[in-house]
Amino acid sequence: MKNIYIIGVGLIGGSLAIDIKKNDPNVVIHGISRKETTLNEALALNLIDKKATLDDVDKADLVIISIPVDATVKLLPTVLDKIQDSALVIDAGSTKSEICKVVENHPKRRNFLAMHPIAGTEYSGPSAAISGLFVGKTNIICEVEKTTFKLQEKALKIFEKIGMRIRYMNPEAHDKHIAYVSHLSHISSFMLGKTVIDKEKNERDIFDMAGSGFASTVRLAKSSPEMWTPIFKQNKENVIETLEEYINNLTQFKELMKQDDFEAIFNEMKNTNHIKDILNGIA
Amino acid sequence: MKNIYIIGVGLIGGSLAIDIKKNDPNVVIHGISRKETTLNEALALNLIDKKATLDDVDKADLVIISIPVDATVKLLPTVLDKIQDSALVIDAGSTKSEICKVVENHPKRRNFLAMHPIAGTEYSGPSAAISGLFVGKTNIICEVEKTTFKLQEKALKIFEKIGMRIRYMNPEAHDKHIAYVSHLSHISSFMLGKTVIDKEKNERDIFDMAGSGFASTVRLAKSSPEMWTPIFKQNKENVIETLEEYINNLTQFKELMKQDDFEAIFNEMKNTNHIKDILNGIA
Repeated sequence: MKNIYIIGVGLIGGSLAIDIKKNDPNVVIHGISRKETTLNEALALNLIDKKATLDDVDKADLVIISIPVDATVKLLPTVLDKIQDSALVIDAGSTKSEICKVVENHPKRRNFLAMHPIAGTEYSGPSAAISGLFVGKTNIICEVEKTTFKLQEKALKIFEKIGMRIRYMNPEAHDKHIAYVSHLSHISSFMLGKTVIDKEKNERDIFDMAGSGFASTVRLAKSSPEMWTPIFKQNKENVIETLEEYINNLTQFKELMKQDDFEAIFNEMKNTNHIKDILNGIA
Repeated sequence: MKNIYIIGVGLIGGSLAIDIKKNDPNVVIHGISRKETTLNEALALNLIDKKATLDDVDKADLVIISIPVDATVKLLPTVLDKIQDSALVIDAGSTKSEICKVVENHPKRRNFLAMHPIAGTEYSGPSAAISGLFVGKTNIICEVEKTTFKLQEKALKIFEKIGMRIRYMNPEAHDKHIAYVSHLSHISSFMLGKTVIDKEKNERDIFDMAGSGFASTVRLAKSSPEMWTPIFKQNKENVIETLEEYINNLTQFKELMKQDDFEAIFNEMKNTNHIKDILNGIA
């Protein structure tokens, strides 16, 4: 794994670059991006050693694709077309079904490993990349049996070195579960932000009265629409299902309030307090 | 302000006790609680100097009431009945209309100051009390003109010493705005937690797939139902209004997804990203 090409040098790609290089200073990290300015920024930040283009991936030992999931679906088959037989291609997309599907019959399917590192912040771009982002975080690998055993091993060694815990799952199960614990959180946060902004035209009032609780709950509303729109598009059915359940729960809560059934309101919250125990392991 | 009586020695009362004592080691902090175990815990944690009962408040220079808002409405008139003429009574409730209303005609109304310090964590009880909780936080004071000028001054000196910024507001405006930036956040968080728990009966899956984004968005679902049920009850009309708007925004988002209008989805998120600038001043 000497020559590593990272397509998309933002939060995830850039953070992977930092830690892979730290663990193995001999590797050469080549950055690829649609935007020259992004590449220059990544170079200036020392995330990458060299700038490259898509045509260069034929020299790669490892290609990491960390771009919006719609772009991944388009680009992944081309990347597999171009690579040498011994190369490994990994994607870091937040959806897995469409990505796995687009290469299911590709002659180089066995060179590809589908992953989703459950790590990130609400920031994006090269300047958002940080060291240690993946320590103790879960990396979900899909359809591991479809990747050559030798390349699996190489990938796992990298993930282990950057501190990730591995879980295996099929793409459909991944997309279904992640809709609940990640995609829905983002929508609840975005719509909370929208509701408050719409109402409180005088922003000074929001600023003065909002505490750390509000800040925490709307944190994800800072996330990149460029990244999240294609995620919602690809995981449309699952996300709509979670949204319907969420809206039903909110509506029921509202109805209980209208009926002055505050005993039921109390119990709803008491039962959900149980999330404490579930979250205890999450940083 | 030698003898300070704090009714309710949990997160807010306990944190106030710590910082008031730190700034003025000569004061004697007396704790009052319905539960003997809570008082003993507060004593063991050095939050209070002495245990006291409600009958003792006739010896108070300052009484701080930091208990659930329904209990405050019941207790506040009695406390005002008991205090000496020079004493100041402050409440720290998260709603202000009912609390101000219950004492509007009380003969000692001018001894009372209604405040809402916008500070806290999702934890509760004496062990949740921390030093520095109020530094840089906003303290909303309602109906300041109804408090004797001398007692206003004393209160402001205390708030200043513990690092709070002061904003003045009438109780109705307070309750309306706070429904958006605080009460709605709590419900959105509780219902998000409920939706995910209901769906993911196998908790191991949640734990493994949930990242820091989910943890941040459901953090408030750890909050105390004992404290929050009476808040929702007292601020019922405003909270229902915010819930209706939130549900409408979520429903519209879901409909846009169903119609495959991902350009509109993108724009919704882009417009809400603006929350970044609004939040920049909040820790």
